[in-house]
Amino acid sequence: MNEHEAFTHLDDHGQARMVDVTAKAATPRRAVARATVHTTADVAALLGPGAGEPDPIVTARVAAMEAAKRAWDLIPLCHVIHVSEVIVEIVLGEGVVDIEATTEVLERTGVEIEALTACAVAGLSIVEALREADPWVSIDDLALWSKEGGRSGLWLREEHVET
Amino acid sequence: MNEHEAFTHLDDHGQARMVDVTAKAATPRRAVARATVHTTADVAALLGPGAGEPDPIVTARVAAMEAAKRAWDLIPLCHVIHVSEVIVEIVLGEGVVDIEATTEVLERTGVEIEALTACAVAGLSIVEALREADPWVSIDDLALWSKEGGRSGLWLREEHVET
Amino acid sequence: MNEHEAFTHLDDHGQARMVDVTAKAATPRRAVARATVHTTADVAALLGPGAGEPDPIVTARVAAMEAAKRAWDLIPLCHVIHVSEVIVEIVLGEGVVDIEATTEVLERTGVEIEALTACAVAGLSIVEALREADPWVSIDDLALWSKEGGRSGLWLREEHVET
Amino acid sequence: MNEHEAFTHLDDHGQARMVDVTAKAATPRRAVARATVHTTADVAALLGPGAGEPDPIVTARVAAMEAAKRAWDLIPLCHVIHVSEVIVEIVLGEGVVDIEATTEVLERTGVEIEALTACAVAGLSIVEALREADPWVSIDDLALWSKEGGRSGLWLREEHVET
Amino acid sequence: MNEHEAFTHLDDHGQARMVDVTAKAATPRRAVARATVHTTADVAALLGPGAGEPDPIVTARVAAMEAAKRAWDLIPLCHVIHVSEVIVEIVLGEGVVDIEATTEVLERTGVEIEALTACAVAGLSIVEALREADPWVSIDDLALWSKEGGRSGLWLREEHVET
Amino acid sequence: MNEHEAFTHLDDHGQARMVDVTAKAATPRRAVARATVHTTADVAALLGPGAGEPDPIVTARVAAMEAAKRAWDLIPLCHVIHVSEVIVEIVLGEGVVDIEATTEVLERTGVEIEALTACAVAGLSIVEALREADPWVSIDDLALWSKEGGRSGLWLREEHVET
Repeated sequence: MNEHEAFTHLDDHGQARMVDVTAKAATPRRAVARATVHTTADVAALLGPGAGEPDPIVTARVAAMEAAKRAWDLIPLCHVIHVSEVIVEIVLGEGVVDIEATTEVLERTGVEIEALTACAVAGLSIVEALREADPWVSIDDLALWSKEGGRSGLWLREEHVET
Repeated sequence: MNEHEAFTHLDDHGQARMVDVTAKAATPRRAVARATVHTTADVAALLGPGAGEPDPIVTARVAAMEAAKRAWDLIPLCHVIHVSEVIVEIVLGEGVVDIEATTEVLERTGVEIEALTACAVAGLSIVEALREADPWVSIDDLALWSKEGGRSGLWLREEHVET
Repeated sequence: MNEHEAFTHLDDHGQARMVDVTAKAATPRRAVARATVHTTADVAALLGPGAGEPDPIVTARVAAMEAAKRAWDLIPLCHVIHVSEVIVEIVLGEGVVDIEATTEVLERTGVEIEALTACAVAGLSIVEALREADPWVSIDDLALWSKEGGRSGLWLREEHVET
Repeated sequence: MNEHEAFTHLDDHGQARMVDVTAKAATPRRAVARATVHTTADVAALLGPGAGEPDPIVTARVAAMEAAKRAWDLIPLCHVIHVSEVIVEIVLGEGVVDIEATTEVLERTGVEIEALTACAVAGLSIVEALREADPWVSIDDLALWSKEGGRSGLWLREEHVET
Repeated sequence: MNEHEAFTHLDDHGQARMVDVTAKAATPRRAVARATVHTTADVAALLGPGAGEPDPIVTARVAAMEAAKRAWDLIPLCHVIHVSEVIVEIVLGEGVVDIEATTEVLERTGVEIEALTACAVAGLSIVEALREADPWVSIDDLALWSKEGGRSGLWLREEHVET
Repeated sequence: MNEHEAFTHLDDHGQARMVDVTAKAATPRRAVARATVHTTADVAALLGPGAGEPDPIVTARVAAMEAAKRAWDLIPLCHVIHVSEVIVEIVLGEGVVDIEATTEVLERTGVEIEALTACAVAGLSIVEALREADPWVSIDDLALWSKEGGRSGLWLREEHVET
């Protein structure tokens, strides 16, 4: 048995390469990723409805949509794909900002990294707005929440137990 | 008192804008950020020295250096700066991958978001390599670790208590 | 009736999002856009055949072709598409520079914004060449001239009367 | 006398080249540009406060800020500069959307093309939101409004008469 | 007979334009390109296994993969395509570094320029690492080695004699 | 003695990193690079004055100027710099196309890789125009021709003998 088998990006000589998707069929695929920005309740409250226009949150959503389209240019082993749908939701809580990105494609590869990249950049954009007020601000739990379509079908984070 | 005061990116009308740095002097600045990728011990072990070339980790380091230079193009309210130094260290542990990015500039603004962006993209690049083997893989604790230079001087995460 | 109906980019909660095109079929589509740069007759004449190589105009055409391919990266709600044909014509007149861009795709969405972006960037490139000689130089009448293909068929600007 | 004299971008052989700015001193400079999007009163009204979140306008402002930072990458003969301030205002009127962009730098070259590019991309972003409802939508009067700083000092559009 | 016939990028008026590929069918295509970096034996040896981690070579491979995906953004007349596979091999010899890039697509146009761009950027990345030690370092023999698929079928450099 | 000494990009552990330039002074620097495209006399002649507009050559010059400004985004270990001058000359010969790029900066690092990148992309752009007519077309002798400024002063390729 070969210890590289679990690595889709390592060829027989252990070298990084992109996965060849030429022969796969284009099928609809969807992915949902999430992340949470942690700050203090006081700082998070400044982003809320009482703070005037919700600009920092809208700005983060726009940045996230753009980043999803450019994931292939940020992640070396990621394929160039046409993201056909990007929805980014940002919900303000008590000392937290919850981010969820949904991406859809009709492609030969999945769209998980695009959803994750959207969450990361939404988080960085929120952090950029808050870091002067709270240098301890952090991004956590940036992870895939579900994926659907392609050979492996539906996968839901909550229905599985990590081994 | 104005509730927007803590927001460097909101003008008097609460609208998002870039901070004007024209009048500031260019001074040396340094920032360190960190993040952790969580996976299973088995999957993390596949990245280790026994797995042949350490390609996925080198690839993540290269992606991170490039992302630090492009942070201004990813984060709408971030300034265009010349990052003069980017060091990315990635350390493989038991089920974890620890990422640390150090950025330096001689500029009129800080370089914190560049260090954070480098960590985020290093993390995404590791996740791209591991997500088939472990879809639960997550990025956590993406945060600033220290900053130095500029008006506010040295700030170390561990020497402060969050209010 | 819902006042958002006319907005393809607003979802039920009035939030900006990309239009989901996953289920649409890829069909040939074509768009033509135009714009006019206004300057003085003297300044425009300097761009003409008597002025040596027609470099500023060729440069503007190249910039426009490149911008058409990158419209998705400039316009947040625009989809990533493969522009398969970009033709940019620039005609010098008496105090005016007329720009026309034609774009074609075999895609699931239209290619109008790509033609408009090509005209805008051709115009900006001409303005960059002329603005020292004429700071009053302006770009006007940047608009779609025709579109063809997709569900809505052929649309010609001159055959319609604006309501 | 040489007919190329008015062209800063043409060298002695009439060939396009960037202007050499190596020997100039970095000084504060500011530019203001404007543009107007023309649509129908009904379509413009859909962007207003009654339409829920002002997302399309905020999205256009974010796209414009990002484009100002990238003008050098869109316009071949434009220099790479650090834009230190970008303010984009978008005002909704009766059938019109007025756009104003202010850019500031501490650089060896002016920042006019950056302000113009911001207005163009804000306009394109508004057009992208409205073009399904109104394919006749147009961008007009995209021009410099004022510039300040550098060798040529203050220039105000309204205080001059075009020759 | 028209002397422009051999030029796929010149229209009837001799103007540069992209080739219209809308009507072509998407078929699998593959291209292989090669280049050689020439330096001294001493300098090339520093890149070898005795020199610690093979970082400069891995960095060049990553840069090359990313450049292949972005060839359309570097070469004005090049189409936007989805590169589905990029393999970059770099072999260290006696005073030489040999580079080979293989690209694959399922597209309506060939993928030759993507393979050539990958080799060029791998070479530039190696040169960036070596130029302080050897300013005479050069890149030579950057050329297509084979292409396969599409209307013209298989072409192998070594099986042909240049006319 | 340490075998890594000749490598400016390898730190004490042999890992790739950018060179720290924070403490260096900004001084004027200039670099000249050259490359040659080899094709057949017949194919090269098609690019000449008898072939109508010299578009493919102007297009290559524009592509090269843009690439010089973006070298930092293509070459991972390259610094972000403001290229203040890029001059690209392309001369058509008997079966050859000679390319020369001159770059100037007022920076803390040299501008050699920017001149080399300009030549490489000019060459690729010429190859893109000629590859259908001549798939054997190659780029050769891509190398630095001179550099001036900074700590190391003037270096001219022809005045040195390679060891």
